Amino acid sequence: MTRENITIRPITTEDRGAWERLWQAYLVFYKSSIEADQTDRTWQRLNDVEFNLHGLLAIDGDEVVGMTHYLFHPSSWTDLPYCYLQDLYVDEPRRSQGIARALIDAVVQAARSHPAQRVYWLTQEDNSTARLLYDKVASPTGFVQYRIAPL
Amino acid sequence: MTRENITIRPITTEDRGAWERLWQAYLVFYKSSIEADQTDRTWQRLNDVEFNLHGLLAIDGDEVVGMTHYLFHPSSWTDLPYCYLQDLYVDEPRRSQGIARALIDAVVQAARSHPAQRVYWLTQEDNSTARLLYDKVASPTGFVQYRIAPL
Amino acid sequence: MTRENITIRPITTEDRGAWERLWQAYLVFYKSSIEADQTDRTWQRLNDVEFNLHGLLAIDGDEVVGMTHYLFHPSSWTDLPYCYLQDLYVDEPRRSQGIARALIDAVVQAARSHPAQRVYWLTQEDNSTARLLYDKVASPTGFVQYRIAPL
Amino acid sequence: MTRENITIRPITTEDRGAWERLWQAYLVFYKSSIEADQTDRTWQRLNDVEFNLHGLLAIDGDEVVGMTHYLFHPSSWTDLPYCYLQDLYVDEPRRSQGIARALIDAVVQAARSHPAQRVYWLTQEDNSTARLLYDKVASPTGFVQYRIAPL
Repeated sequence: MTRENITIRPITTEDRGAWERLWQAYLVFYKSSIEADQTDRTWQRLNDVEFNLHGLLAIDGDEVVGMTHYLFHPSSWTDLPYCYLQDLYVDEPRRSQGIARALIDAVVQAARSHPAQRVYWLTQEDNSTARLLYDKVASPTGFVQYRIAPL
Repeated sequence: MTRENITIRPITTEDRGAWERLWQAYLVFYKSSIEADQTDRTWQRLNDVEFNLHGLLAIDGDEVVGMTHYLFHPSSWTDLPYCYLQDLYVDEPRRSQGIARALIDAVVQAARSHPAQRVYWLTQEDNSTARLLYDKVASPTGFVQYRIAPL
Repeated sequence: MTRENITIRPITTEDRGAWERLWQAYLVFYKSSIEADQTDRTWQRLNDVEFNLHGLLAIDGDEVVGMTHYLFHPSSWTDLPYCYLQDLYVDEPRRSQGIARALIDAVVQAARSHPAQRVYWLTQEDNSTARLLYDKVASPTGFVQYRIAPL
Repeated sequence: MTRENITIRPITTEDRGAWERLWQAYLVFYKSSIEADQTDRTWQRLNDVEFNLHGLLAIDGDEVVGMTHYLFHPSSWTDLPYCYLQDLYVDEPRRSQGIARALIDAVVQAARSHPAQRVYWLTQEDNSTARLLYDKVASPTGFVQYRIAPL
């Protein structure tokens, strides 16, 4: 199966159930959980055209099989902003079928028409499955992340 | 010498010369250069209270010895935004005197009063000098960065 | 009765019922109505710390008796942004008790600490009751509004 | 002469001289003046793609004959933001030739593709010349403005 059958489209308010299933599976993958009111808030932000958080779904037939969230922020290095692809998830049984790649491609398209200067994302150093794909579609930058949280 | 002599304060329009010296040294460290009009633009953004790009300088006596830039962006995971510390530089002869740490502490303070949920930054995996400090003041997240650019 | 008994505080997620009662009465005053999903969206925006729409309530004892919404936008004329007080409503039986004035004062305080350069609002030319108050607390600018809508 | 000869296009960094001549004439019309550093700041904002302040010029041949500035802000009443046309000016000898109308039309186009829900502006109640035009292209809303400034 190839990604030719996959459609990528923006999240709409009709997609709550399908989106939440993927969102929760994604959080489980990261051994995380967030409170119900934050899930509500993220959902509202994704559906508010005026909020700087955007979501795309991957659809196969009438089944939602993947999702991604992205946002824009300025940079001291460039005129145009950067596009940060914050979240990406594909249903486990649907991995290795080009769905993640189709989602990334669609974010690149959205960033290009924003316009933004780049798309970037972060992944766990030891997530070798994901990195097999990322090494094909993008350049590892050699940068690692540090964090101070909570404040 | 300790950082007790160091003052951290916001960039003002008076600081152009001192800031640009550090900015250019920082770019050289990254084997990068950017065009003069982008340096102008970044300077204007840093000095525009309405623009989401902020700068701090480290001062020793009347000498400017370090700088940092930071910005805020929303997150799908949290109510409060994230604070991205994008740039950090300390004059080479003034390294290991607590100046970088004082700059990071000041960004944490600014992020706390914004308020933001976290401060994060990226550094080159092989920058072992910087990572000695970062491992003390922050947590490595195990995340590495990928990038598609330019679009 | 004076406004000494009145407390002004930010809207919280607990206030939905009280807020919606005032919001609907306000819309009726303007012979308007908006769809339920827009009321939901406005409510979510008011409660999202990252969204540029803020709300205050006037409380008397445990009764919510007034509300106001405000937002910030840049200006070509000033460094600091303007604060636009978009909506203001006080329960009809509670008019002329200083409640509207207390709400405006609280928006001025919020704008001052934002910081913003000014607070402004619009009112119907023939709303003589409201203008009696507005002429006391603010300056009429002599500007009238034109609109092209919908696009 | 009609506006068929008039081209409307975004401000670029090449236009500083022409823009500043119109901006100063506009300020004189309002019996106002602003400090040189605010004019610099407004110019930088107009030319920063990431800043919420946009400018258009009206060109006749190689002569710049009019200008307008606009920005977007959210609204509690609508999903889409409002577009506020803050400044509009046409060279005095070039009035009544359709230039102001062409500038307003171009802001409406920009707002439509943003997308925004409406375009609005404010004008002095006694500016009967301007209002002759505005009454043709837009609807007076019957709203007058109040202001508290400076804070």
